[in-house]
Amino acid sequence: MKKTKRNIYLSNIEVNEAKKLFFNEINKSIKDKKEETVSVYDSLNRISAKPIFAEISSPYFNASAMDGIAVISNKTYGADERNPKRLKINEEYIYIDTGDPIKEPFDAVIMIEDVALVDDETVEIIKAASPWQHVRPMGEDIVAGEMIIPAYHKVTPVDIGAMLCGGILDIDVIKKPRVGIIPTGTEIIEPEDNIEVGKIIDSNSVMFEAMVKTYGGIPKRYKPIPDDYELIKEKILQAVKENDIVVVNAGSSAGREDYTSKIIKEIGNLIVHGVAVKPGKPAILGNVEGKPIVGIPGYPVSAYIVFETFVKELIYKYQGIKQEKKQFIKGTLSKRLMSSLKHLEYVRMKLGKVSGKLVATPLNRGAGVTMSLVKADGITKIPKNVEGIEVGETIEIELLKDMESIENTIVSIGSHDLIMDILANMIHERYHEINLSSAHVGSLGGVMALKRGEAHISPIHLLDEKTGIYNIEHLKKYLKNKNISLIKGVKRLQGLMVKKNNPKKISSINDLEREDVVFVNRQKGSGTRILLDFKLKELNIDNSKVKGYDREMTTHMTVASAVLSGTADVGLGIQSSAKAMGLDFIPIGEEEYDFAIISEFLEDEKIKRFIEILKSKEFSVMLESLGGYKIEEPGRIINI
Amino acid sequence: MKKTKRNIYLSNIEVNEAKKLFFNEINKSIKDKKEETVSVYDSLNRISAKPIFAEISSPYFNASAMDGIAVISNKTYGADERNPKRLKINEEYIYIDTGDPIKEPFDAVIMIEDVALVDDETVEIIKAASPWQHVRPMGEDIVAGEMIIPAYHKVTPVDIGAMLCGGILDIDVIKKPRVGIIPTGTEIIEPEDNIEVGKIIDSNSVMFEAMVKTYGGIPKRYKPIPDDYELIKEKILQAVKENDIVVVNAGSSAGREDYTSKIIKEIGNLIVHGVAVKPGKPAILGNVEGKPIVGIPGYPVSAYIVFETFVKELIYKYQGIKQEKKQFIKGTLSKRLMSSLKHLEYVRMKLGKVSGKLVATPLNRGAGVTMSLVKADGITKIPKNVEGIEVGETIEIELLKDMESIENTIVSIGSHDLIMDILANMIHERYHEINLSSAHVGSLGGVMALKRGEAHISPIHLLDEKTGIYNIEHLKKYLKNKNISLIKGVKRLQGLMVKKNNPKKISSINDLEREDVVFVNRQKGSGTRILLDFKLKELNIDNSKVKGYDREMTTHMTVASAVLSGTADVGLGIQSSAKAMGLDFIPIGEEEYDFAIISEFLEDEKIKRFIEILKSKEFSVMLESLGGYKIEEPGRIINI
Repeated sequence: MKKTKRNIYLSNIEVNEAKKLFFNEINKSIKDKKEETVSVYDSLNRISAKPIFAEISSPYFNASAMDGIAVISNKTYGADERNPKRLKINEEYIYIDTGDPIKEPFDAVIMIEDVALVDDETVEIIKAASPWQHVRPMGEDIVAGEMIIPAYHKVTPVDIGAMLCGGILDIDVIKKPRVGIIPTGTEIIEPEDNIEVGKIIDSNSVMFEAMVKTYGGIPKRYKPIPDDYELIKEKILQAVKENDIVVVNAGSSAGREDYTSKIIKEIGNLIVHGVAVKPGKPAILGNVEGKPIVGIPGYPVSAYIVFETFVKELIYKYQGIKQEKKQFIKGTLSKRLMSSLKHLEYVRMKLGKVSGKLVATPLNRGAGVTMSLVKADGITKIPKNVEGIEVGETIEIELLKDMESIENTIVSIGSHDLIMDILANMIHERYHEINLSSAHVGSLGGVMALKRGEAHISPIHLLDEKTGIYNIEHLKKYLKNKNISLIKGVKRLQGLMVKKNNPKKISSINDLEREDVVFVNRQKGSGTRILLDFKLKELNIDNSKVKGYDREMTTHMTVASAVLSGTADVGLGIQSSAKAMGLDFIPIGEEEYDFAIISEFLEDEKIKRFIEILKSKEFSVMLESLGGYKIEEPGRIINI
Repeated sequence: MKKTKRNIYLSNIEVNEAKKLFFNEINKSIKDKKEETVSVYDSLNRISAKPIFAEISSPYFNASAMDGIAVISNKTYGADERNPKRLKINEEYIYIDTGDPIKEPFDAVIMIEDVALVDDETVEIIKAASPWQHVRPMGEDIVAGEMIIPAYHKVTPVDIGAMLCGGILDIDVIKKPRVGIIPTGTEIIEPEDNIEVGKIIDSNSVMFEAMVKTYGGIPKRYKPIPDDYELIKEKILQAVKENDIVVVNAGSSAGREDYTSKIIKEIGNLIVHGVAVKPGKPAILGNVEGKPIVGIPGYPVSAYIVFETFVKELIYKYQGIKQEKKQFIKGTLSKRLMSSLKHLEYVRMKLGKVSGKLVATPLNRGAGVTMSLVKADGITKIPKNVEGIEVGETIEIELLKDMESIENTIVSIGSHDLIMDILANMIHERYHEINLSSAHVGSLGGVMALKRGEAHISPIHLLDEKTGIYNIEHLKKYLKNKNISLIKGVKRLQGLMVKKNNPKKISSINDLEREDVVFVNRQKGSGTRILLDFKLKELNIDNSKVKGYDREMTTHMTVASAVLSGTADVGLGIQSSAKAMGLDFIPIGEEEYDFAIISEFLEDEKIKRFIEILKSKEFSVMLESLGGYKIEEPGRIINI
């Protein structure tokens, strides 16, 4: 009896070591300067390949710097208040405007304000002119032969103006590197194709296209190639011919990148296969016919990180420019981070500034979670050989967004509801400078975040079993030493979400005990979980009888998604989520979804805007269209 | 007897006041949201007009997260080391790769590493699978209905990937504002036209085009319009129809902008004419048919500042985005700055970090000096009602370049030579991260800058009259308390520069006394001025006898330019400059042009690279081609 084997021999070398091996081998072909000539009109942001020296002077001639008269300086000598001097037109003076050329015999300008008119042909002056006064000399701005910009300079609008003034119409620039992008995988379809089960939309290579443009290259995206050794080899050979850099994106299968590595071995040199970085481990670095080739794993986050780590540097090196300096900032970790000892890990972070403290909260670490990149404000690297980082530790974070926008962000941590997206959009749409970021950790998690000073507001829906009152009792209990308020939010319907037409005929919480019913749960500490446990207790149902009780999701939408996709028959959640997913909904009860807040933040301008949005007509219209909500006095503040 | 009058009634209102008046009137037309739909493929850097909600979930189905076998979880229960369980292919398991869909009846995945092969149809497992283990649930990344980006968000490559995953192919974005650019002036020619005396190349409007692109608009540049009221009016009306914002650039005549203001008065509303800012005072702000129109003065620096102040803000407001935050830094002023009380003045600054101190040196303040913008590292504003700022005061500077590149700049202050441009280029071409910036204040000025700690190196050519030794004696005298070295540079020929074929038959310094010969001088403190004064003294020539002795230029090239343009017959300067300008040259003597340096800077990596360049083969080849230079041991260091 033998184990099945797959021949995936990945190395685990460190990023810097991999870079050294890779760039040592391909530096030569990158460094050969490739130039092209472009019109100065089209040279914005291009990199000069040679120094640019002015061909003509600017101004091109001696020009009047004033409106007035041009005179011959030595004919004005002796003029003063008591001995004004009269000058004859054409012989001794001519009228001149700013910018007009000074021609012989004239060699000075007198401002029009200092000239008295005697008659049509005569003027009188009361001050002598010194030679070349009020004359802008030829070459004052740019002297022919002067260097305007050096080589390897990124052309700005001002440089363009100066080059044109200096008589330069064409300029030699570094060619933009062409980057060929080959998506592979039999399951990969174009974004415009119809999606079906088993298919994956090729979004990575379109993201790569945009990244190549951002970094100054010219992308060429090929159509997805199915998993066929010969077809992929053929396409790589074509791409190597047509481009300076080639990127091969594997599909989602772990064995997939084997094709790329084997092909590179056959037709070129496989330099590295496997880098000690997470996500991104199966990265491939090679050289085919002197051109760098990078094999990139299929999961979107891995794809992004491998592209950023290797391809971005290639594109910059090719252009002979250095990468912009990364901005780092220190923040306090709000959630324990465990990591493997075996690799460097990149963790996407959400940042927020609460009471002057920069709080960093790790986002979903899955390699497939694109949204963790969309939402990320920064990235933290956990070095190899570090097991983890504890809550409250200070960590260094590479900024992906500017600090100003992070400082203008309302940090919301707590329960999930669709309206958090709506509110985030409404406030940003009305006040472009304000952002609202939501982390979904459940109501109790949100209350704890408030306690630790990590959030401005916390959306909660916590039922006090004794009094039947929502939220206030829990805040009194958990935050008794804090000055807390509650901003009233919405009333919303909770209920059972089941497949369209309710095939399992589920009608109440009692059905969760049924042998043929699979449930999907919410995480501990969420208001919905508390509601479920309360209902089960009320009905004396043992939760071990509920199949799927241990499978936890963190949002209403992922619960709805589980029901829709068939991994569960039923879940507890809000009506708007059921509606959004086209599920049937069996109401269980109404609850109050409000915003707990540390009272001092009520003075914060961002929070004032937030409350204004809650009270707005647009918000109530939007709730109407979502369904499942009621409002009474949204934005009303209750001091606790 | 009456004074001539021109009807230029300029107001002098402050920038913020002008903005308030202007934006109050045109805000309405800017704020009406103009949208267009673009393909997500083309949406990079566009501004979303609406929030984008995912239409489909990603992944679109429950997918295997591992390579292995898909199983039915409840058929695996009970399996352990002692009681392995055997499964039958197709009925109880199927092989599955990462990314493959999990279909009924299967509901879990076992990694291939944990599967033992019994025969072709049977596998054995030693651990039970829990439901949905190693399954990536539908919607794990993006759940249908989830907001991917809010409105007024600038689309990034990652957003593009996420939108495609979420089934979004088209997106509503804010239309890019169209900016019509009308150059006016009878003397204005297109850059590709032949330049002649009296003509001015239209570089401003091409610079504006590049600025519009940089800020996110679409420029439309019209051909230059001659100074004709009706023609300009017609073009403005056309441009208002075809664009969202219109910019009219006046030629260089001070009266020119009157056309624009009068036309705006006739066909729209003239809001402001004249702003208390220098350069840029004659700015015009108006409104024609609800479209903002900005009249911009002709001098390039004025043009740049007025565009930056008003048009940039218009383009950003139109897109509903805020301008990136300006970066400010504090520096020490190295040169006294006088200013008028009447307006806010923008002064372009060269910055350098010397011994940890940020030194700010004002560049040429002329409104026409484009090169002051090309060279500027920052801009300082001198407020209205401030008379000036003294040397050594701390000033606030808006950064135009990144601090890293300023920190990697060798600051050279001293004498001028063409080789400073050559060296600046050579070092930047070889070491992209290093820059060399040269200020030309003459040899003695350079020595003083070293003394004040404002420069790393100072190029000098100072003859000691007694010993005939260059440079060393002066350094001993002026910098006796400093630890100073001299880096040997080049020997160069000084001489008289005269027009081609020497029409005035000038043959020696003695000719400067002639009645028919006009001289052009260098500034006090320059080595060349010291050389001239030494020669005059030697020959007993009274400098009051030298016509043009008081007219001072600060570089060899501007002296050469004065001779070429005919404002002087002769000047003293170096052979390479005469050669560059096509002038004849009468040698006077050879001198030594070296680099004084504070000894501790010899340890600086930048300086080591600089010395390496001086010693390089390329440098000597370059000197050969310039002519007029000799080298003996360039880069040799003499401790003083």
